[in-house]
Amino acid sequence: MGMVGGSIDAFIGAVHRIAANIDGQIELVCGSFSSNPEKTKETAQALFLNPQRAYSTFQEMIEMEAKLPESERMHVVSIVTPNNLHFEPAKMALENGFHVICDKPVTFSLGEAIELEKVISKSGLLFGLTHTYTGYPMLKEARYLVKVGKLGKIRKVVVEYPQGWLSAPIETSGNKQADWRTDPKRAGISCCMGDIGTHAENLAEYISCLHITEICADLSTFVPGRQLDDDGNVLIRFENGAKGVLHASQICAGEENNINIRIYGEKGGLEWKQQDNNTLLLKMLDKPVQILRTGGNGLSSKAAPANTRTPAGHPEGYLEAFANIYKNFAMAVRANIQGKTHDYETYDFPTIKEGIRGMLFVEKAVESAQKGAVWVKM
Amino acid sequence: MGMVGGSIDAFIGAVHRIAANIDGQIELVCGSFSSNPEKTKETAQALFLNPQRAYSTFQEMIEMEAKLPESERMHVVSIVTPNNLHFEPAKMALENGFHVICDKPVTFSLGEAIELEKVISKSGLLFGLTHTYTGYPMLKEARYLVKVGKLGKIRKVVVEYPQGWLSAPIETSGNKQADWRTDPKRAGISCCMGDIGTHAENLAEYISCLHITEICADLSTFVPGRQLDDDGNVLIRFENGAKGVLHASQICAGEENNINIRIYGEKGGLEWKQQDNNTLLLKMLDKPVQILRTGGNGLSSKAAPANTRTPAGHPEGYLEAFANIYKNFAMAVRANIQGKTHDYETYDFPTIKEGIRGMLFVEKAVESAQKGAVWVKM
Amino acid sequence: MGMVGGSIDAFIGAVHRIAANIDGQIELVCGSFSSNPEKTKETAQALFLNPQRAYSTFQEMIEMEAKLPESERMHVVSIVTPNNLHFEPAKMALENGFHVICDKPVTFSLGEAIELEKVISKSGLLFGLTHTYTGYPMLKEARYLVKVGKLGKIRKVVVEYPQGWLSAPIETSGNKQADWRTDPKRAGISCCMGDIGTHAENLAEYISCLHITEICADLSTFVPGRQLDDDGNVLIRFENGAKGVLHASQICAGEENNINIRIYGEKGGLEWKQQDNNTLLLKMLDKPVQILRTGGNGLSSKAAPANTRTPAGHPEGYLEAFANIYKNFAMAVRANIQGKTHDYETYDFPTIKEGIRGMLFVEKAVESAQKGAVWVKM
Amino acid sequence: MGMVGGSIDAFIGAVHRIAANIDGQIELVCGSFSSNPEKTKETAQALFLNPQRAYSTFQEMIEMEAKLPESERMHVVSIVTPNNLHFEPAKMALENGFHVICDKPVTFSLGEAIELEKVISKSGLLFGLTHTYTGYPMLKEARYLVKVGKLGKIRKVVVEYPQGWLSAPIETSGNKQADWRTDPKRAGISCCMGDIGTHAENLAEYISCLHITEICADLSTFVPGRQLDDDGNVLIRFENGAKGVLHASQICAGEENNINIRIYGEKGGLEWKQQDNNTLLLKMLDKPVQILRTGGNGLSSKAAPANTRTPAGHPEGYLEAFANIYKNFAMAVRANIQGKTHDYETYDFPTIKEGIRGMLFVEKAVESAQKGAVWVKM
Repeated sequence: MGMVGGSIDAFIGAVHRIAANIDGQIELVCGSFSSNPEKTKETAQALFLNPQRAYSTFQEMIEMEAKLPESERMHVVSIVTPNNLHFEPAKMALENGFHVICDKPVTFSLGEAIELEKVISKSGLLFGLTHTYTGYPMLKEARYLVKVGKLGKIRKVVVEYPQGWLSAPIETSGNKQADWRTDPKRAGISCCMGDIGTHAENLAEYISCLHITEICADLSTFVPGRQLDDDGNVLIRFENGAKGVLHASQICAGEENNINIRIYGEKGGLEWKQQDNNTLLLKMLDKPVQILRTGGNGLSSKAAPANTRTPAGHPEGYLEAFANIYKNFAMAVRANIQGKTHDYETYDFPTIKEGIRGMLFVEKAVESAQKGAVWVKM
Repeated sequence: MGMVGGSIDAFIGAVHRIAANIDGQIELVCGSFSSNPEKTKETAQALFLNPQRAYSTFQEMIEMEAKLPESERMHVVSIVTPNNLHFEPAKMALENGFHVICDKPVTFSLGEAIELEKVISKSGLLFGLTHTYTGYPMLKEARYLVKVGKLGKIRKVVVEYPQGWLSAPIETSGNKQADWRTDPKRAGISCCMGDIGTHAENLAEYISCLHITEICADLSTFVPGRQLDDDGNVLIRFENGAKGVLHASQICAGEENNINIRIYGEKGGLEWKQQDNNTLLLKMLDKPVQILRTGGNGLSSKAAPANTRTPAGHPEGYLEAFANIYKNFAMAVRANIQGKTHDYETYDFPTIKEGIRGMLFVEKAVESAQKGAVWVKM
Repeated sequence: MGMVGGSIDAFIGAVHRIAANIDGQIELVCGSFSSNPEKTKETAQALFLNPQRAYSTFQEMIEMEAKLPESERMHVVSIVTPNNLHFEPAKMALENGFHVICDKPVTFSLGEAIELEKVISKSGLLFGLTHTYTGYPMLKEARYLVKVGKLGKIRKVVVEYPQGWLSAPIETSGNKQADWRTDPKRAGISCCMGDIGTHAENLAEYISCLHITEICADLSTFVPGRQLDDDGNVLIRFENGAKGVLHASQICAGEENNINIRIYGEKGGLEWKQQDNNTLLLKMLDKPVQILRTGGNGLSSKAAPANTRTPAGHPEGYLEAFANIYKNFAMAVRANIQGKTHDYETYDFPTIKEGIRGMLFVEKAVESAQKGAVWVKM
Repeated sequence: MGMVGGSIDAFIGAVHRIAANIDGQIELVCGSFSSNPEKTKETAQALFLNPQRAYSTFQEMIEMEAKLPESERMHVVSIVTPNNLHFEPAKMALENGFHVICDKPVTFSLGEAIELEKVISKSGLLFGLTHTYTGYPMLKEARYLVKVGKLGKIRKVVVEYPQGWLSAPIETSGNKQADWRTDPKRAGISCCMGDIGTHAENLAEYISCLHITEICADLSTFVPGRQLDDDGNVLIRFENGAKGVLHASQICAGEENNINIRIYGEKGGLEWKQQDNNTLLLKMLDKPVQILRTGGNGLSSKAAPANTRTPAGHPEGYLEAFANIYKNFAMAVRANIQGKTHDYETYDFPTIKEGIRGMLFVEKAVESAQKGAVWVKM
């Protein structure tokens, strides 16, 4: 695997590398980690890479690697740059025969995402999107339970993603993460909805097995001087008549990274919180609530145990969820290379389809908000 | 005290009586417990009341009690009937010199509520409304912390009230509680918003010390055949520019009575859940979360300890919260009778003002929903 | 009911009164609330009692009340004094025809407890002991599940009672509660074991339906200058071969009143924590954990719902548990007076039997500790 | 790194490999994974190892690797076999110039552990012991807070390790993990105390910064036919006069892997539970409890953040804790090779010292139990 972005200073680059490392199935062999070639060299050294495979640009990386013998060259490009730098390297990698795994949101704009889908389709190669949270085993169990009708017809979904880290204008005092996310040139038309609202939207559709068809989004910028939204409250309606609430925020002072979801059907409900990710509450009407657990008893899906590494009570977390996406993607790539079929049900990972849904959500949320928080179709 | 409604079969009548009993400050002396005189007699007997003070109608009760010497007669009428039977007994009681404490929502319609306010005002007597949840000590602490600016300017409020008990059409199979709440003739224009949405609205305004000024309400009836809403998702905006989400539901299968609230300001946030009512989480920006506890250390308000009966770690609950409203109302009545002043800051209770806000919320939520979930001013 | 002890300054007196009031089944009619007659008068006035029934001594109360006509006089004496003042009033009350309900531990010494049992037996009257925690509905459910064999043969019990309020020598600075509890003249041979260790012991035997037969107790006094134990760690063995741990402490800094119990059998386990008293975790081998709830779904016992006042999700607490003991005792007294039988299975309350077990536990724990924490039979 | 034991069928081998992989600092280059050479080959293939470095025996591995040029050969041997197969490979590896990292308990007997210490000392090489739980950042914070006196003088420690997986005799029906752990020939003199009691003992001494000096251990075998203990309740006394309770069990039906610890000093207490590993409760006397969090605000130690990979709210878990031991050990090995000093305070890992304490604990616990659960010095 080669990496675009993710120098040793970046947060998410390290997370991607850990996720790729954990299972010993993927080897990082090269990278173009930074627009600063010195930083790229430094990163390559820290990662014990061959210095010759520390490339100044992603273009160089793709070109040079494509020339290497197949047994030596990278097979996958991992893209971990800000939103505005996803499309170009992804496109070029795909056009040069490399599979791509990319951070979310998938592109800078919906237009780019739709175009990228065409590139992928034409290439016949695989494209993975690291919507981390769907990597959690207990969410795979939740999706399965909904899919097989355990809850009956779905009526209501409540999905939340409160964070507090942008409560103050830290982008003005050198916080690199805050800087690009609040900059329309790099983040696109939205900060909060793009960065974390898309995770919430992805989770809602993943779990419910339903598409959101209409939204009414009240977006706000609470921190003076900020150019993009840092909070949003959204009413949602689903294709089957279910309704719900999606809210995401970066100004919920004191919250860490508290993404969570509840879903209710005619016969029961489910509740999951990322900060207690190994627990899934199953609430069947007129019965005691059951505590389903990663690696634990009474799971119904094949996917949950298949995406678990340790026995119940040995907590897995964010990195393992992230690693599940890498592992499943790597399995699919290997199957692709070997001409085999991949079990997408058990070893699932998000793709360009989820990427397009995310970008559509962002564009529609911003459109709704700009019109005064009115209903828009999605 | 005399009681209108609340025969031995009813749920909320018993709760009111327990709440009135706990502190030994209020004595139930008479009642008109049911439209069925036999049921009234039976209830009076079970409560060890003088059988002569078990009245067939509230009119009779008010008339007869008014004739008794002051040292003997009731001083307060407690009204615990369905919504459509609040206004008449309240009005008559007030006009005959009796203070009134009444279940919520205060009346059948906003119009009645506004008229009742005039009656109260003219009478010079006290009117208490049993919005139970504001009786919890930790919510009094929360309100105080917001009021004194601990959180800075308020930015966001999330208030939820999920229940699951109306997931199936139990009103058709003899559930008395479900029956009147889903009947427009007795409940008014709303089931879910009127019954529990008003609690959520009351909590949001109580804690935030702010008025809601605009709402966008998406109400639903999920159970086929039901005439009123059983679920609602509402975007809210406050007078100071804060925003938020209020959702209430009676079809969240598997939920008990999970009213909860989170509020965030520039400097910190607070979180409270009724099902863990003795805990209030204080989340100051860049500091560890603190666990404030009923009867515990580090409380700032005078009201929280003043409304607590036991030391920390001896859980108080719903009945104690309810009893705080009765106790504080009784203190105010006693002060009124004795011509003294009551400390409304420390021993607060909801009044007709909160009642009118609640009815306004219900009417506006229904109006918003009927127009397709558009923004309406409140 | 008449009360001995419990002036307006005392903590536990008020708790007993609330517990007696809640259900409107018991009326406080007289009292000897303090050794200081002025304090007694003041208390009587605050409680709206007839001043003539505020007695200077318990002897006077018993004598005078016995002379009143049956329809007027008290039927029950409630004793809420320190340990050294339980036996005398209990004995005298019983010998004068009054039922007795008494705070725990039952007496100052095991000898007194055994003697009291004889007095009770001879009187043919009822004696209730306010071991509060067994009043919780979820513990009644737990006991029932164990009793009917749901967990299989019991193997292990872990019961804890950590408090932190005596971490510093507050008895030297005027804390009345601390003062008598740490004074051998009033508390007896033990502070921690007597005050709260007995609650733990009572809980262990109540839930397990088993007697403890051997203990090995390592008691400590951590606060310099204190005369009695403020901490104890105890290994326990049960009659059926089960084993366990009981520890109680008043120097666990930062703990409130965290009594909790876990019990494990061949087929499953149960977990309950007083500070989350409405939840009982049922952990069956190889199945997901179930969350049983006060007023909730899937309860097996008749006793749990019979001792619950509100629907699930309306938290009950310490005062309701306490009130269950008073209510059940009052039911038994009423049945006794009316010559009817009382359903002791459903409406249970602790009696002299539990009192003697508690005193035996205290004496044996102190004996074990004094010998160097060796095993002693119980 | 080369590995002894840990074929693809084994649980703990995979955990060690993940732990070694995560940070990209350690490369597995060879192994002797099983006594069955076919299984070793199969494992090597699954791990993409050079087949020539899949050795039939650990002796062969050590001999052959020692002959390779330094830049190519392994530098560390990781031992993940059952207890009876730790000593020989560790000794041989050290005597041939390889650093060793080994699963716990360190050896089959205390005698072996003491002998191993001499071998290590003579070799001048590093020896790491994978007592996983001390790898958790919040425990490093806890240790630091105790060390700097935040809690004052320590008075009480409660450490628990309940599991339920051996509630039934699964060793008789082919469970490999259960099989060797309950076999005296492979596990040694204890099952429960050796396997998990040692973790509890390690945690107690790690957090308290104190040695246990006396224990009184009541060990049991609840499952008929089992040869070793499956449960143990232990009273403990520390060098400074603190006391406590340690209990561990494999028959607590329904428990997963619930190791947890509470520690109390004169001024405050700390609470940590492995199943919620990212939270550390700090309970200072007379103050609200604070929730300290992995990656969160208000941490005092340098070690906690230094052993954390993700921001607060992105849960880390068991594998990351395990990886911290590997990472810190690898850092120390690298420093050793480069002649630099290692910061043992910030990047700590357990060594033979902790190994000997563990074996001493096991031997003394068994001795105490065999004498009838009497006090023995440790």
